[in-house]
Amino acid sequence: MMTARPDDDERNARLLLSVWSEPGDEQLAARVAHLGAARVVDEVLTRTSPLRRAAAMQTRIGPSPRDSRVLAEHLHQRARRCGARFVVPGDPEWPTQLDDLLTRAPLGLWIAGATNLRTLAVFSLAIVGARASTPYGEGLAHAMAAELADECWAVVSGGAFGIDAAAHRGALAGGGVTACVLAGGVDVPYPRAHASLIARIRERGLLISETPLGGAPMRHRFRTRNRIIAALSRGTVVIEAALRSGSGTTAREAHALGRAVMAVPGPVTSPQSAGCHALIKDMSAHLVTSSREVLRHLDPALVPEDEDWSRDSLAPREARVLDAVPLRRPAPLHRIAATAGLVDVDVMAALGLLEADALVVREVGGWRRGSQR
Amino acid sequence: MMTARPDDDERNARLLLSVWSEPGDEQLAARVAHLGAARVVDEVLTRTSPLRRAAAMQTRIGPSPRDSRVLAEHLHQRARRCGARFVVPGDPEWPTQLDDLLTRAPLGLWIAGATNLRTLAVFSLAIVGARASTPYGEGLAHAMAAELADECWAVVSGGAFGIDAAAHRGALAGGGVTACVLAGGVDVPYPRAHASLIARIRERGLLISETPLGGAPMRHRFRTRNRIIAALSRGTVVIEAALRSGSGTTAREAHALGRAVMAVPGPVTSPQSAGCHALIKDMSAHLVTSSREVLRHLDPALVPEDEDWSRDSLAPREARVLDAVPLRRPAPLHRIAATAGLVDVDVMAALGLLEADALVVREVGGWRRGSQR
Repeated sequence: MMTARPDDDERNARLLLSVWSEPGDEQLAARVAHLGAARVVDEVLTRTSPLRRAAAMQTRIGPSPRDSRVLAEHLHQRARRCGARFVVPGDPEWPTQLDDLLTRAPLGLWIAGATNLRTLAVFSLAIVGARASTPYGEGLAHAMAAELADECWAVVSGGAFGIDAAAHRGALAGGGVTACVLAGGVDVPYPRAHASLIARIRERGLLISETPLGGAPMRHRFRTRNRIIAALSRGTVVIEAALRSGSGTTAREAHALGRAVMAVPGPVTSPQSAGCHALIKDMSAHLVTSSREVLRHLDPALVPEDEDWSRDSLAPREARVLDAVPLRRPAPLHRIAATAGLVDVDVMAALGLLEADALVVREVGGWRRGSQR
Repeated sequence: MMTARPDDDERNARLLLSVWSEPGDEQLAARVAHLGAARVVDEVLTRTSPLRRAAAMQTRIGPSPRDSRVLAEHLHQRARRCGARFVVPGDPEWPTQLDDLLTRAPLGLWIAGATNLRTLAVFSLAIVGARASTPYGEGLAHAMAAELADECWAVVSGGAFGIDAAAHRGALAGGGVTACVLAGGVDVPYPRAHASLIARIRERGLLISETPLGGAPMRHRFRTRNRIIAALSRGTVVIEAALRSGSGTTAREAHALGRAVMAVPGPVTSPQSAGCHALIKDMSAHLVTSSREVLRHLDPALVPEDEDWSRDSLAPREARVLDAVPLRRPAPLHRIAATAGLVDVDVMAALGLLEADALVVREVGGWRRGSQR
């Protein structure tokens, strides 16, 4: 895949192609990989190309070299006006994980928000699930997202009703970063009822889309969108899904990309958990019951396998405090006390004992887990 | 292992050894496998044997050849009085599956009930789980046991409170056969509160124990008892279990014996499902959500993999009727109608269509599933 820093021609060419085509057009992507975007644009402008007609339809102007320069400038202006940017492979902000999609990689991504996409994607996981969720699933999505955000993991999801929204909200509540991959343009909040949630995600994280600005969230774009969610993340957790659901396609994409696929079980009497059980049975998705287990699958080095055993030897108070200490980002005493539900003086005493066993480490900002198992 | 028809000496010897020893004594079993039970009894009677002292303790009489003949006769009489029998390897009623336990096979089994143990064990599965169960788990255990009993599978369990009792009751409600493997003697109903359930199991199925008549259900006997449950069954289904529970040991025994191990998931917020989730995660137990999935793991030939797909093409009424038709044992029209919740005339019409597709077959006694997928 392309790794050289893209020049303006290449960037503009990808911009135009992304406007002229539909997300996930594999033939086009293959041609771009073969010739470079600039030459594919030349083909459209000078020769008969299947894109030529589509380009005229999409932009309502005949694609001529001059018109296309005007269009590119117009798109850049529009992006600047709404605070969005278009990133392409080779950009410093391009998340290289997307290259795993090979010819299914997007031509570029429209993004809006304060965070750097590449940095966000280093420690990111997808939490997705049913729109028609239950309080059980929503509660879990919220709690897991908050705990993972607290461990500095970015939560990627699709902004939909139900599980997606609960995951975004949980990540925000956990003080973390979250990214919403939209099926329409990043300036088209969808669903409408989530306009304020999506605005908050933009403030604290990122809105991401393969669809150009102003593009409608059309049905087929949700499917192609799911591959971006899967590819951006080190792993995908499905929390509640009906059989044959959209989250099922995200999980399958993640599986095909060699990412960790995880599913949370639920009552077998709940149709909302049937898709999760099917993923575990039929796709060997990992059954996960807690954010700690999710972390273990994302990066086994982060959570020692025998942690549960060493915890067995601790007194109840120490075990409780240890549970409340974050793995990576130090937390101050009062936050650990609040999480553990204990008074500061007891937490202090417990931390002292845990520190002696190298189970916790004191750092600027508080305590985090130690390397000792 | 022993397969020759045992003579009276061998049977009496095993009877005496089972009274003189504790269930699950591997050293004794190895010696019996090596020398035969009769010679091991001779050792006890004539030479210094570690059993000699224990034998004297257990029976309160010094083990002499004469005393032991008296004791054997007394035990036979006692068994006859309470309608129990002692079966040993090589007996026509001995379930050969137990030979898979090798040196951990019981010396013999005390059984009481109307059914033949060997026949029962041909199609048998264990349903076990937590004593401190929830209505969710109990409902599932009851329904699964009833459905599997309806398919002519014998449900083996341990007679305990919670899941075990729900499984026995479900099997009885499903008109099937159930076996209860007790930790105490088959004439010692335990727990006491289950005296009437255990009496019903004896009437319709079997009570089984390695512990001699009158033996108390002592703590360590539950653990050794679990291996009998696992070995007698083609597979073990765990429905609700805490972490590190008795049902976990049954599942591990089943796993070690190469039997199918299955666990039913539940809410991750329920400690009663934590053991099931651990079995799926750590022991690769099959996640099962219905009796049909259980059957698939017990014998894949019984339930075609693509059944769900062919059912997709059926009209809702036919699908509902097909679901109500048993796999193996024919059911009469009125029972299928009751199960499907439809009136006879509709069921009749649906059965006609299903029969034309070879999805059901008419036989003496009603309809059962056809071979067509």
